[in-house]
Amino acid sequence: MSVLYDEIAEQPAAIRRALEANAGPVAELVAEIRRRSVRLVVLAARGTSDNAATYAKYLLQVVCGVPVAMAAPSVHTLYDADVRYGRDALMIGISQSGAGEDINEVMARGRAAGALTVAITNTDGSRLTEVAEHVLHCHAGTERAVAATKSYTTTLALMALLAAHWSESAELQLGLAGIEAAARRAMAPEVDARVRPLAMSLLHAERLLTVARGLHLATAVEAALKLAETTSSPTQAFSSADLLHGPIASVAVRTPCLLFAPSGRTVPHLVEVGERLRARGARVLWFAAESDAPFADVVPLADPGTELLAPLVDIIPAQLLAYHLTSARGLDPDNPQGLTKVTITR
Amino acid sequence: MSVLYDEIAEQPAAIRRALEANAGPVAELVAEIRRRSVRLVVLAARGTSDNAATYAKYLLQVVCGVPVAMAAPSVHTLYDADVRYGRDALMIGISQSGAGEDINEVMARGRAAGALTVAITNTDGSRLTEVAEHVLHCHAGTERAVAATKSYTTTLALMALLAAHWSESAELQLGLAGIEAAARRAMAPEVDARVRPLAMSLLHAERLLTVARGLHLATAVEAALKLAETTSSPTQAFSSADLLHGPIASVAVRTPCLLFAPSGRTVPHLVEVGERLRARGARVLWFAAESDAPFADVVPLADPGTELLAPLVDIIPAQLLAYHLTSARGLDPDNPQGLTKVTITR
Repeated sequence: MSVLYDEIAEQPAAIRRALEANAGPVAELVAEIRRRSVRLVVLAARGTSDNAATYAKYLLQVVCGVPVAMAAPSVHTLYDADVRYGRDALMIGISQSGAGEDINEVMARGRAAGALTVAITNTDGSRLTEVAEHVLHCHAGTERAVAATKSYTTTLALMALLAAHWSESAELQLGLAGIEAAARRAMAPEVDARVRPLAMSLLHAERLLTVARGLHLATAVEAALKLAETTSSPTQAFSSADLLHGPIASVAVRTPCLLFAPSGRTVPHLVEVGERLRARGARVLWFAAESDAPFADVVPLADPGTELLAPLVDIIPAQLLAYHLTSARGLDPDNPQGLTKVTITR
Repeated sequence: MSVLYDEIAEQPAAIRRALEANAGPVAELVAEIRRRSVRLVVLAARGTSDNAATYAKYLLQVVCGVPVAMAAPSVHTLYDADVRYGRDALMIGISQSGAGEDINEVMARGRAAGALTVAITNTDGSRLTEVAEHVLHCHAGTERAVAATKSYTTTLALMALLAAHWSESAELQLGLAGIEAAARRAMAPEVDARVRPLAMSLLHAERLLTVARGLHLATAVEAALKLAETTSSPTQAFSSADLLHGPIASVAVRTPCLLFAPSGRTVPHLVEVGERLRARGARVLWFAAESDAPFADVVPLADPGTELLAPLVDIIPAQLLAYHLTSARGLDPDNPQGLTKVTITR
């Protein structure tokens, strides 16, 4: 069908490979984290990798109880600031290509300021692997479609693996043992059968919204980026809480709003926001568990056994939607207009 | 004309009041920061206050060299996490009303975990002032328009005052001495004369983009929120670096893109991105210094003497644009449809 579609389909196997190959490197990293009594995590990333960092921001705080900051690369690359990260900071640089100059610069500054540095990348021997002391390789295989899919979900898997080892959470470890199967369920024929007509119904949508909360904000921001990149429809992601603090005023009649509400603690707030959106006349489209009561006609989400891992599988139906909507519009899903696979910013 | 317009016009005096009234409280706070050797700042805020936090995120890293994290309230309110902030963390909660349950919960958790807590608020005796050990009051006067203006710029002023004392930066201190005058220049008749026809030319725009980088990202995100709240046009803010990592693919012919490029280190990248946008057929609209070479027909920005303070005054022409566009569309600038002055989320 297309490279993008093939790469979406490769994700369950890629996630398994990433987890298997990194058991040793993550154990070594966690040993070093304990030696240094790490008490701050700094994440440095752009684009899809930054969306993966959003997952890590929530997961590491919730599971490991460590404060997490997202680096602002220009602090170093434009303003040449010396930030005192210190030896008890862990800096994680995420880049599929490992070639982003800004991320490499942030990592070099972090290392010089004493931080423990880790690269998460899908490219052997990249500059990022040289600048970081530890490397976690995604093992996603070469990614040829411009829109990243398997490098995203494998990065989430590595973050979950790190959190599982660091926190010794049985819930995460058990969930990870079944995550490949959950990822396969996330792209089952009955999911695709719901996504295809949904894509057709969005053919003339001029704008899309994605909404989620907490751990699942990563799914909303990554779904928005995938849809914006491939379908060329402006797509904006919101935390369901932030949406109420102003932006809801710009939601018009029939604006399609994709709400991600996997089973767990965010469901009640999402239901409330869904009602507010419907009251404005918006078109509310649910990605949710079919068994969760208030939803009808949902795109069904696979249950990975714990809410903590839901983002690893919930993005898959959104990737399928991006693929089908792009194809239905006669656009090339593999090569979005005006983008290249590796974007280098400083 | 309208409450919103009056409150925009009150900002120069409000900024002066905020700076004068907080010299003492900020000096006390900085003494405590030094006693504790603070080495991490955590910012907790929603909506407009979160945009003010974005300014602080850059400013405190650049000027004070301290890592800065943005709190994710749901980590505490939904997932009930214990985050080990520690006694050398400074947590700043920002809320105009001081009534946001989520921000107050984050602050209570931070204080319980040892952090030094500071409230920035415009409301005496609010819950936030009880939960925090230190209070910096905006002294903006009652804000009646739903869209926040003077509570935003006074919050930026307090952040700059804190950074100036903490870092002992002569550049910031000198700049703050002249900031009231710069704010007056930012709303001079010749600025309004440029903004009015610009608003008319945007009457039928279905979507707006705002773009900036580094310290000025705060201006882009706050301009986007103001425009989305009041004009009801979906408005999306991007860092000029992030825009290149995918979202630029969704920029269509004639999409109005408001680029904020005050004199300083971000100009070259903004010029490059402006060219990329123009190549896609977008309508590129500059908010910049008239003297900076590559720009023609700009909305002129006032020069506060240092790039570090530009966000305090650069938002003003964007507020005026929101006001004029809202009025031109026959909407009520003071009461955007579907919003209330105080939004409470958990």
